[in-house]
Amino acid sequence: MRTRLRIITLFFTAFILSTGLAFCQTEKTQLPPEATEFYEPVPPKVDPGKTTLDPPSDAIVLFSGKDLDMWQSAKDGSFPKWKVTDGTFVVEKGTGDIQTKQAFGDVQLHIEWRSPQVIVGEGQGRGNSGIFLMGMYELQVLDSYESKTYTNGQAASIYKQSVPLVNATKAPTEWEVYDVIFSAPKFNANGIVTKPATITVLHNGVLVQNHFALRGPTEYIGIPNYKAHADKLPLKLQDHGNPVSYRNIWVREL
Amino acid sequence: MRTRLRIITLFFTAFILSTGLAFCQTEKTQLPPEATEFYEPVPPKVDPGKTTLDPPSDAIVLFSGKDLDMWQSAKDGSFPKWKVTDGTFVVEKGTGDIQTKQAFGDVQLHIEWRSPQVIVGEGQGRGNSGIFLMGMYELQVLDSYESKTYTNGQAASIYKQSVPLVNATKAPTEWEVYDVIFSAPKFNANGIVTKPATITVLHNGVLVQNHFALRGPTEYIGIPNYKAHADKLPLKLQDHGNPVSYRNIWVREL
Amino acid sequence: MRTRLRIITLFFTAFILSTGLAFCQTEKTQLPPEATEFYEPVPPKVDPGKTTLDPPSDAIVLFSGKDLDMWQSAKDGSFPKWKVTDGTFVVEKGTGDIQTKQAFGDVQLHIEWRSPQVIVGEGQGRGNSGIFLMGMYELQVLDSYESKTYTNGQAASIYKQSVPLVNATKAPTEWEVYDVIFSAPKFNANGIVTKPATITVLHNGVLVQNHFALRGPTEYIGIPNYKAHADKLPLKLQDHGNPVSYRNIWVREL
Amino acid sequence: MRTRLRIITLFFTAFILSTGLAFCQTEKTQLPPEATEFYEPVPPKVDPGKTTLDPPSDAIVLFSGKDLDMWQSAKDGSFPKWKVTDGTFVVEKGTGDIQTKQAFGDVQLHIEWRSPQVIVGEGQGRGNSGIFLMGMYELQVLDSYESKTYTNGQAASIYKQSVPLVNATKAPTEWEVYDVIFSAPKFNANGIVTKPATITVLHNGVLVQNHFALRGPTEYIGIPNYKAHADKLPLKLQDHGNPVSYRNIWVREL
Repeated sequence: MRTRLRIITLFFTAFILSTGLAFCQTEKTQLPPEATEFYEPVPPKVDPGKTTLDPPSDAIVLFSGKDLDMWQSAKDGSFPKWKVTDGTFVVEKGTGDIQTKQAFGDVQLHIEWRSPQVIVGEGQGRGNSGIFLMGMYELQVLDSYESKTYTNGQAASIYKQSVPLVNATKAPTEWEVYDVIFSAPKFNANGIVTKPATITVLHNGVLVQNHFALRGPTEYIGIPNYKAHADKLPLKLQDHGNPVSYRNIWVREL
Repeated sequence: MRTRLRIITLFFTAFILSTGLAFCQTEKTQLPPEATEFYEPVPPKVDPGKTTLDPPSDAIVLFSGKDLDMWQSAKDGSFPKWKVTDGTFVVEKGTGDIQTKQAFGDVQLHIEWRSPQVIVGEGQGRGNSGIFLMGMYELQVLDSYESKTYTNGQAASIYKQSVPLVNATKAPTEWEVYDVIFSAPKFNANGIVTKPATITVLHNGVLVQNHFALRGPTEYIGIPNYKAHADKLPLKLQDHGNPVSYRNIWVREL
Repeated sequence: MRTRLRIITLFFTAFILSTGLAFCQTEKTQLPPEATEFYEPVPPKVDPGKTTLDPPSDAIVLFSGKDLDMWQSAKDGSFPKWKVTDGTFVVEKGTGDIQTKQAFGDVQLHIEWRSPQVIVGEGQGRGNSGIFLMGMYELQVLDSYESKTYTNGQAASIYKQSVPLVNATKAPTEWEVYDVIFSAPKFNANGIVTKPATITVLHNGVLVQNHFALRGPTEYIGIPNYKAHADKLPLKLQDHGNPVSYRNIWVREL
Repeated sequence: MRTRLRIITLFFTAFILSTGLAFCQTEKTQLPPEATEFYEPVPPKVDPGKTTLDPPSDAIVLFSGKDLDMWQSAKDGSFPKWKVTDGTFVVEKGTGDIQTKQAFGDVQLHIEWRSPQVIVGEGQGRGNSGIFLMGMYELQVLDSYESKTYTNGQAASIYKQSVPLVNATKAPTEWEVYDVIFSAPKFNANGIVTKPATITVLHNGVLVQNHFALRGPTEYIGIPNYKAHADKLPLKLQDHGNPVSYRNIWVREL
């Protein structure tokens, strides 16, 4: 190797001497293209799902249609009382939020949901639930198809923080798809946030949140304000009293 | 709902009167939740596609399966010589790159492609094409299923700049899906870049580029280096000599 | 040029042939270092100030100690009633805010201020003023030396949005220095913010705000919420009723 | 103040009672301002230096003018052979780079340097040294006052990655000041970078690097490419054979 390098250097030197060339880019030096090619590290091979909705091979499947074994009551850790039927599960009013047993930080999340089939209520009272990244950063779930509410509380909003770029909600008879890229916040030793959480969301394939920097946990009442917390925390789904359905939930740790 | 609000208001009022409280957060003041609710601007309503692959109502459809009317030769502006068959079109070797007639800046882009059905060549010689945002920022198209090449040149790489997080390529018999969020670079009056272009890419639904900041135009030979350019420029597809197929291309201006 | 390029290519070809080298990075190819060297565009020459406090040659000096000719009443555009003495000027209670005649977007701002020499009041009542980038994004000015207030309202806070990383305030007898890097927000055609404003602040040379993404205009009452506005707007200084002094103000457009 | 608050509260109460208002922002509800005021966590008190050049009380002083006790040879860990004279130290040609004994990640760095007093050489040969954050991310030190070189290699460049926004170099008889905000890169379990290092630099008080995202370690030859490394690594100063002087070096962990 050493010898080869020396030979290369010699050739190169000869090359320079003979041309007297200053290799500045402005003269469009024809470098070997290999100079900008790298071989390591090799990205791991992942089998994507059959469709873009299906879990890729490196995903942790949180709900495949069968059971809620990956979940527990957010209140007391008991088995969730939400009901599984026909490959979906439905919020069981009054039984409280549920959360994953596993904790997550930076993730790609795929989740599908559907508003109640019987339309009841208006605004925040119609088909309300929520997806809480790290248990505290809410991506809103709501029937926003033909129902008005505050813009920063409609479906696909980061609740009371960021209005979706567009309203891509479907009719309540249809399933909605969220594809989420979430990056956890970082804190310093004084408990002050040094990097806010960021989130990107596609709603039914349409960009609705574009690398939004969260202001702190999403609050129903009052102002978001970061407090230092663990690097990984469970994903939570909200019981807001409406029979919202969920299906096909998977997550990839980034 | 209305009644409930009034009741809340009354309670809140009573609460204030009875305590004469200085409203500092540390005392967990029960503010009216309406304080953090906004009603304007209202995000435009968009009908998403039937599936997440289909163009939403606000998309500009660049190829729906019929013709290349939205495209022209990148070389001379003539009508593209690439062939449309069965709802797809195929790179016609030696006819050169094609580009959109319309120019774009910040966009969400959906595009599907398929490697040639007869496997020929290796590495960069197998199923090579490319998607050039603004005509100069390349998201690589390549048959990377079971063919080795430099990591920053495989499918879903930002060519010679950013390795994909994972290799989510499917077998060449299948269609590949790219969902892209691209933000154009900004330049100051001295021609120096003040905000690099950023790109996020889902490959077959799997995150492969996460808000990557490009270093300049992607170069086969030499080093990327930004040069000030227009705010909007055409999207380009590369003729690299391999019969790569494309279909279902749409773009949303952000 | 053509000929020279061809000669280079020939030499280079000879060079490759003779070594038989595959130029992959893994073999630590000794490329010519000139390959990564660029000569354009040339950054403009700027004479920095004699000290880091002094305006560099490309700065717009907003106050050099002499007069308020660059400023006007924010209310009615009349000449400011704030008083210039000894190379400084002082907030004149009740005369209202003042703002620059010129509008600014992305800037580097240097500004020095001093709390009133007679300590009166507490918390927000002691030495309160403010620096409003684009007339609406406030970097707080306050005597926070030995006076308590809410953390997101102390000196060097982004008012009611971001607590400074540390409290670097000096005793009120001394001059305080802010060095600010501000990037204006961007909005889309629907009036929705697509890039929040960001701010970095050094307070007396100590980092207190690190590329913080603002949530909207800073509000005394209520919640910040972006509304689309012009690319450039005047810089404003606040009359909060306290005789805060200012001096040595300059800005560089970025 | 107290009284005023109580009056405000009364007014606010009356206001609510009289209107029975739904508190939407569009009606400009007069919320209590205290709703957006936070008291924790309290930013630590830091005594800034007497001038913005002096180390604040929470800084780790790496060179105060006396000795090189905080440093060691980068090659073999021996005591540095660079010479301390008159409150400065000078690169001792041929003795190799020196680095801090302590390792650092995210930092604010203040450092002053001066080109050799006898001008020798041109371009990269004149007054060349370098400041390597984490031992591998170089902020260039060079006499760029009236000497031409490649723009991405001049003083205040991120070596071969980012041209400074302006050339704020002083004459070699004068001391140069760098104020740096650096954020370390992050890597995932596969060794792929998930957050690039970022850097902001003020050169003699003038912004020259604005939150630039590094592409990997800065390389003299070849292309930057991240490799996973420790969260904290020593700061290194380069012996490039020229008698560059340094003084007044301090760092704050962020």
